Amino acid sequence: MLKHAVLPPYLLFFPLHPSLPGAGASSVVPFSQQRQWRRQRRQNNRDNNNKVRRAVSSLLEQPTIVIESTRVTGLLTIGGVFEPMETTQSGESLYRPALQLILLSDDLDQRGWWKKTEAALCYPKNVIGSITYEVSFSVPVNFGEIGAVVVRNELDTELFLNDIVLTIDGDNSLPLLFDCKSWLHSTSVRVFFSSNKSYLPSKTPAGLVGLRQHELHIMRGPGTGERKKFERIYDYDVYNDLGNPDSDPGLARPVLEDLVVVSDRKSEQRSATVYVPRDEGFSKVKQETLGSVVHNLLPSVETALVDSQMGFPSFTAIDELFNQGLPLPLQDTTHTFRTIVPRLVKATTASAKNVLRFEQPEMIDRDKFSWLKDEEFSRQTLAGFNPLSIQLVAEFPLVSKLDPSIYGSPESLITAELIEREIKGVMTVDEALEQKKLFILDYHDLLLPFVHKVRELEDSTLYASRTLFFLSPESTLLPIAIELTRPASPKQPQWRQVFTPCWDATGAWLWRLAKAHVAVHDSGYHQLVSHWLRTHCCVEPYVIATNRQLSQMHPIYRLMHPYFRYTMEINAFARETLINANGIIEQTFSLGKYSMELSSAAYDKLWRFDMEALPADLIRRGMAVEDPEAEHGLRLTIDDYPYAQDGLLIWSAIEQWVADYVGHYYPSPADVAADSELQSWWTEVRTKGHADKQHEPWWPSLNTQADLVRILTTIIWVASGHHAAVNFGQYPFAGYFPNRPSIARAKMPVEDAKEDDLAAFQKKPEAALLRCFPSVIQATKVMATLDVLSDHSPDEEYLGKDAEAAWRKNPVVYAAFERFNCRLREIEAIIEGRNADPTLKNRCGAGIVPYQLLRPFSEPGVTGMGVPNSISI
Amino acid sequence: MLKHAVLPPYLLFFPLHPSLPGAGASSVVPFSQQRQWRRQRRQNNRDNNNKVRRAVSSLLEQPTIVIESTRVTGLLTIGGVFEPMETTQSGESLYRPALQLILLSDDLDQRGWWKKTEAALCYPKNVIGSITYEVSFSVPVNFGEIGAVVVRNELDTELFLNDIVLTIDGDNSLPLLFDCKSWLHSTSVRVFFSSNKSYLPSKTPAGLVGLRQHELHIMRGPGTGERKKFERIYDYDVYNDLGNPDSDPGLARPVLEDLVVVSDRKSEQRSATVYVPRDEGFSKVKQETLGSVVHNLLPSVETALVDSQMGFPSFTAIDELFNQGLPLPLQDTTHTFRTIVPRLVKATTASAKNVLRFEQPEMIDRDKFSWLKDEEFSRQTLAGFNPLSIQLVAEFPLVSKLDPSIYGSPESLITAELIEREIKGVMTVDEALEQKKLFILDYHDLLLPFVHKVRELEDSTLYASRTLFFLSPESTLLPIAIELTRPASPKQPQWRQVFTPCWDATGAWLWRLAKAHVAVHDSGYHQLVSHWLRTHCCVEPYVIATNRQLSQMHPIYRLMHPYFRYTMEINAFARETLINANGIIEQTFSLGKYSMELSSAAYDKLWRFDMEALPADLIRRGMAVEDPEAEHGLRLTIDDYPYAQDGLLIWSAIEQWVADYVGHYYPSPADVAADSELQSWWTEVRTKGHADKQHEPWWPSLNTQADLVRILTTIIWVASGHHAAVNFGQYPFAGYFPNRPSIARAKMPVEDAKEDDLAAFQKKPEAALLRCFPSVIQATKVMATLDVLSDHSPDEEYLGKDAEAAWRKNPVVYAAFERFNCRLREIEAIIEGRNADPTLKNRCGAGIVPYQLLRPFSEPGVTGMGVPNSISI
Repeated sequence: MLKHAVLPPYLLFFPLHPSLPGAGASSVVPFSQQRQWRRQRRQNNRDNNNKVRRAVSSLLEQPTIVIESTRVTGLLTIGGVFEPMETTQSGESLYRPALQLILLSDDLDQRGWWKKTEAALCYPKNVIGSITYEVSFSVPVNFGEIGAVVVRNELDTELFLNDIVLTIDGDNSLPLLFDCKSWLHSTSVRVFFSSNKSYLPSKTPAGLVGLRQHELHIMRGPGTGERKKFERIYDYDVYNDLGNPDSDPGLARPVLEDLVVVSDRKSEQRSATVYVPRDEGFSKVKQETLGSVVHNLLPSVETALVDSQMGFPSFTAIDELFNQGLPLPLQDTTHTFRTIVPRLVKATTASAKNVLRFEQPEMIDRDKFSWLKDEEFSRQTLAGFNPLSIQLVAEFPLVSKLDPSIYGSPESLITAELIEREIKGVMTVDEALEQKKLFILDYHDLLLPFVHKVRELEDSTLYASRTLFFLSPESTLLPIAIELTRPASPKQPQWRQVFTPCWDATGAWLWRLAKAHVAVHDSGYHQLVSHWLRTHCCVEPYVIATNRQLSQMHPIYRLMHPYFRYTMEINAFARETLINANGIIEQTFSLGKYSMELSSAAYDKLWRFDMEALPADLIRRGMAVEDPEAEHGLRLTIDDYPYAQDGLLIWSAIEQWVADYVGHYYPSPADVAADSELQSWWTEVRTKGHADKQHEPWWPSLNTQADLVRILTTIIWVASGHHAAVNFGQYPFAGYFPNRPSIARAKMPVEDAKEDDLAAFQKKPEAALLRCFPSVIQATKVMATLDVLSDHSPDEEYLGKDAEAAWRKNPVVYAAFERFNCRLREIEAIIEGRNADPTLKNRCGAGIVPYQLLRPFSEPGVTGMGVPNSISI
Repeated sequence: MLKHAVLPPYLLFFPLHPSLPGAGASSVVPFSQQRQWRRQRRQNNRDNNNKVRRAVSSLLEQPTIVIESTRVTGLLTIGGVFEPMETTQSGESLYRPALQLILLSDDLDQRGWWKKTEAALCYPKNVIGSITYEVSFSVPVNFGEIGAVVVRNELDTELFLNDIVLTIDGDNSLPLLFDCKSWLHSTSVRVFFSSNKSYLPSKTPAGLVGLRQHELHIMRGPGTGERKKFERIYDYDVYNDLGNPDSDPGLARPVLEDLVVVSDRKSEQRSATVYVPRDEGFSKVKQETLGSVVHNLLPSVETALVDSQMGFPSFTAIDELFNQGLPLPLQDTTHTFRTIVPRLVKATTASAKNVLRFEQPEMIDRDKFSWLKDEEFSRQTLAGFNPLSIQLVAEFPLVSKLDPSIYGSPESLITAELIEREIKGVMTVDEALEQKKLFILDYHDLLLPFVHKVRELEDSTLYASRTLFFLSPESTLLPIAIELTRPASPKQPQWRQVFTPCWDATGAWLWRLAKAHVAVHDSGYHQLVSHWLRTHCCVEPYVIATNRQLSQMHPIYRLMHPYFRYTMEINAFARETLINANGIIEQTFSLGKYSMELSSAAYDKLWRFDMEALPADLIRRGMAVEDPEAEHGLRLTIDDYPYAQDGLLIWSAIEQWVADYVGHYYPSPADVAADSELQSWWTEVRTKGHADKQHEPWWPSLNTQADLVRILTTIIWVASGHHAAVNFGQYPFAGYFPNRPSIARAKMPVEDAKEDDLAAFQKKPEAALLRCFPSVIQATKVMATLDVLSDHSPDEEYLGKDAEAAWRKNPVVYAAFERFNCRLREIEAIIEGRNADPTLKNRCGAGIVPYQLLRPFSEPGVTGMGVPNSISI
């Protein structure tokens, strides 16, 4: 088998036997045609614009080669939003015949050799407007089905090939489509398989077997060496390039063995750009926006605000971020800012100066004081930007699993007595447990090991926390207790205290401050675990495994392809600027330089593939139980749990779609078991993608169609619904940062309080809260970053909105997709209906921003709704 | 007796028998001296400055008349903060000998005639600096004690005589003091009694009997005619001059029969200025500040803001009143504003323009969000600017006393079930009543009759309300239910609803809006009842009766004098600009043109003299019970009730002081009963001061020293402690008007709600609250007015701080006063201690402004503390 696999496709430009071993990695053999076109191109480059036009015209006048055969005409679309064309030294844009194509049959000939056409040149068909090339072939009548094209980029620049459409004279069936969407680097030879048909490996037409294997061989790469920008290789590595000890020993960061990502450097080392396989690249628009904010706007903010620790002097000063804005220093990129990030940077009326002025989040626009309220604090655990932490209290007392010899008594200070006092004697704790009335945000065991480390950082503090809630008869949660803990250290004894809602001012303020600390914990967990770890980070191995192990003609490759769009690129961006040493996350979140270690610890302790399925996640957290009678087979513990309610709609729609798709290609379980690529894929996801966890017993097996449906639904859900739920609410919920501060800089005034501090707190507790909040620089950076991250770009692709070309070519698949599409439109309406239902108090009420994060579709911009196919921001 | 009374004092300038009937109201008899000095003055007026000085010098060189007698030298102080001196036409200030004096003996001579000296002229003693005059007399050795002086103002301008100090050659006893503090109008003749001694009527020295009666006769006036600005007459009238139907029929207002005040017009009629007896006048500084704000600043605000109904578009716009300020139109008085009300009007840095910029109240400075909190809403019922409404729920169910045939079912919708649900089953309503845990702000019966009337006014609305509170174990109140009621009318059925604290957004917002309506009711009740009616309005008859019935030499006159300072003047100011038709109160408070009718209704239903005593008021409201074991003989229902706690300290201190004083002058009950002036006084307070209530059974009798002590303590308490508690917190608590809005302009969104209104409320409930709040003009006017009303002027006189001259002259009284003074200093310390005691959660806690309204002393300005002697603002 491997013999086929290494057969390089450029050999196809000669009439070779398909099973003949390749000639090794020799240089590309030049063709006469190629030489001829090179000469032509050089000639063009020397000529002026008119001359070029004449040359192009003369090319168009050349007759196509016609032999005794069917005529096949191909139209090639280049670019899209991309600009593949080179500009000449004289400043012209040059549209040139730049590709050669060979068509390849599904069949082998009688000798067992490939059946292929002569190589043909593409001519520019439409120079003005969209960039289309035309090519035509004479194909022998007995050629059989065209199964692949081999394409060679004749230019000395890379080029984006969107698709190739072949029309066969006298054949009324649909034209043949090759949905390429790929960058062809200079002089490269590439194979594309027809999108009209997908094949399980065992069903690969004889003429394509060798090419299928060869393509996968290329995608997997050599496993060594340093990757180059133009490469298409997908491979794994640990997170070893976040630090930058060469530039500053303070920027050394441990290699995170538990997290895997493509990269080939074994030791910590950082280069200017992070390698991403070429076809994973962003569109230009997206690149510019992100780059402008991170590389220009945020440094401008730093210049504008000199004192990095300066906090906000008042809430009015916070309001001014939305009203007056922050004047930015004048600079060259001034103009670009306004054009690229018009939401953030505005011209002042008075002068030509730019100001960074934030849009007021709808939440604050509707209710300026909602962030203060206990009911909103609780509601956001169910319908906020992190609805993934709240869990049922199933056992009492609350006990830590950490080593008591290090961390002190495992039992929480939140006693039954205290709870019963807070629930005002309505019921006992036992009754509350029995009736499933107690819920918790448990940031105790995860944070406790980081408390002292973080406290050694400048201008930061940390507690571990447990926040207990009681379910009201209206199905809303009431926060009833917050326990904050600082464990013992060699220097200090343990400190911990339980705060409760209070009817006196000091108690009420301590409660408010405790809530702020919990909000910080929740922000950190949201960003580092619910968002980064569980979506961005853990989806990347699936992308890599899919590209390494599933052929592009594999139906599952074709199913999964849109759900992985841009994920590797955005992760590379994150590694460059967000999660790197002294990156935005470390500068602005409580965990500081331990941020990625927390992600890593959470991965170690909490992450399980099987629990990434929404129903399993809900059951694990006690937020649902299985119930065959109930919709989706689940009964929610809190029925009005907007994330779960809407999420299950999306989950089920995905599941149905995947089931229809899988059912079409795998009529029997045996087909699943026999699919060598699929089995390799799943093995690689487990053993290479999640190497540390490869021996865990909880990995689902992949023996039946149902197994496959569950696995794929889980992956698609995480990339689409889960990610949308935690991403696009970031600015809406944390854009007014007091609602979800990213960092707490001051400890509770009652922790080892000095008399002066206590007196200052009594005098102006608001100042204690402002001191605890992020600094002006931190807040501004986070807000600008969240604004960009919450943005849908104009080319966003939404779940179930548009079918992939390959899906359209298969009537059964296309019908299933149409069903999926209709179901999502229906879900849109269901969610709208729920948001207007006043009995659903966790999503509908005065001044509440309705729960729209799982509404499938959206306009571009920061809309707080819309579920894209993939993690692309 | 009456014969003496009508004897005009100018007759004393001739040697008459004291019991000779006067010669009627003939013109003043000229003296040769007078003519001489008139000529001299005219000469001076024509001369230049040097000539005047020479003339004055020559006068000083004139020898004093010496005969065989003791020499008595008098020093007269003129002015103080007043400027009595006339400016000549040539622009000079002229210090002139302007008074003639006659000394009068306590005794009559053997013939039963007055013993008096010759009339003597006063000479300017000190032209530079304070204005002092000197006079000297030869007094026959057998003259006896000097008991009175008769003074004649020789000028054609009025003049303020501060005091006269007489030193008797060879007498080492204290000099004789006449503490005049009185305006002498041009050419008037006045009698002043020595402050060294006070006399009960029966003990009046023979030489003074006639003058004592004559003075009272003058003070009482003829009972008819129109008062002139210079008069000293005190008399009663009903409130019949608030309206102004002559200028606009819309400004017609009913005569308020239940309220009494000095004025002589029987039918509704309004003149430019309200008559106030001349000696009740403000100092110039106070007059300028008040006048500048009301007559210049507030009209400027109206010019600046055209749309009178325009509300605040956002909370940020409210904040701007404290940050940016409101630009005022340019005008002539621009400069004066800044000088006179520098707290309010500031120069913008950019231009010479003035801005009206308010000082942010400490409450908001310390905790920007405190006004939103239920616990602060409750706390202010015990320690806010109206701690006089909260009462124990002693009976349940809550029942209205109004006519059910008009107002509907008398039973409240706040049922036992509802309460028990809200107190979460901690106890039953019966247990809560038994344990005194339920409290109420009851604005039901008082407001219900006004609801439809007010709703017919433009841009206003009204409900009746009941707000129920539950006492927490921490001694803080939790609001648990608000019932809002609109009674039936011919056009509409009854509408009422109970709102409770809620754990869902819509419920929480309705609760917040209901709280805003209650805050408006409380603001209105505070201003119209607790403040205006119970202090300003009801103290005025005491002032009048005291001046009409008690001689200035009466010990009780001398006791009460400082506690009545400026009260009539500030009330006249109020009638001119605050409570008049279309005055500030009507423009800005919910009751609109029915404001004074509400005062009147409250007077009718609620006011009782006996209940104006703090202990009685507390007992009536169920906030205390008598307990001989407890301090002050009272046990508080809520121990941590700051107004009651501190108020009882002040009350007891006053009571002790009054008891010491009364005990000194009235050794036996018989002395009280026999004091004809005192009895007339008390009769007049009841029958003329409170004519409508004269037959009420609850009037205390005045038979014993204890009766007198109770009556006087009550009056002093109302004028000092009670007034301070409700006045000086006005800007501190309502300066940020969302905490205590003066008017509600929009009804609850759930009252007869249209779908659109409900949807708008759901979308942006904050807008509903802003729409309900006062308009920008209303808020601004109220804030400016409350700022001025909350201000201590630099010449403020505080309770127990400085002894009256007459008190100092009596060693027993002075010792008692010193004890009073020490006790107040001690109270100052006790209150400071309480405010630092964290167990007193209703006055000490994070972000809480400590309860200082009853701290005895204060600096000038808006300090939120300090108990002045009298109602002077």
